Amino acid sequence: MDKLNTTCGLDVSLTVIGGKWKPLILYHVQGGPTRFSELRRRVGGISEKVLIQQLRDLVTMDVLLRRDHNCVPPVVDYQLTPFGETLVRALVPLCDWGNQNRERVTERLQQAS
Amino acid sequence: MDKLNTTCGLDVSLTVIGGKWKPLILYHVQGGPTRFSELRRRVGGISEKVLIQQLRDLVTMDVLLRRDHNCVPPVVDYQLTPFGETLVRALVPLCDWGNQNRERVTERLQQAS
Repeated sequence: MDKLNTTCGLDVSLTVIGGKWKPLILYHVQGGPTRFSELRRRVGGISEKVLIQQLRDLVTMDVLLRRDHNCVPPVVDYQLTPFGETLVRALVPLCDWGNQNRERVTERLQQAS
Repeated sequence: MDKLNTTCGLDVSLTVIGGKWKPLILYHVQGGPTRFSELRRRVGGISEKVLIQQLRDLVTMDVLLRRDHNCVPPVVDYQLTPFGETLVRALVPLCDWGNQNRERVTERLQQAS
């Protein structure tokens, strides 16, 4: 069985993408520069205030690049940096795991509720 | 660049291991059956109440197996199920990412604080 190696790098990764929203935000900016409003639409259920904070964190960690197009009305978009792309690659197996086990997890959740 | 595929399985994975603690709990039970007290020691900073709830969730999702050894004083331990092991395998790249980028992330955090 693959072992998570001796020093647990998960604590570092979770510092960057911990919580409910950040992995989903990364998933939804993969296609290229994405506007704030579009991101808010794609990441269902997130409030404007929370999305602003999550994006600010991801920009601070150099995972996302924020661009202000300096026009009126204001246009701002976000895109993955090369560093952010390495993190998305590390997330792919977790995404695949979720898809492979969607039914099983859904069933367990229904039994538990 | 590896793409997170069309349907985002991350939402399912995050339902099972979302939040700050669960990935760390999975990391620390990899060695085999682990007692509650030992787990609490290893997963630094978690309260007893939160650890109980997180473990209950992971048992409900069939990721962990809880065994009560029916002795006095009571001995209860937790171990990965085969299903749980598939999830740990999906977490390995994220663990590796964290280790590869520990310095860079730590630097960014210091600059941001």
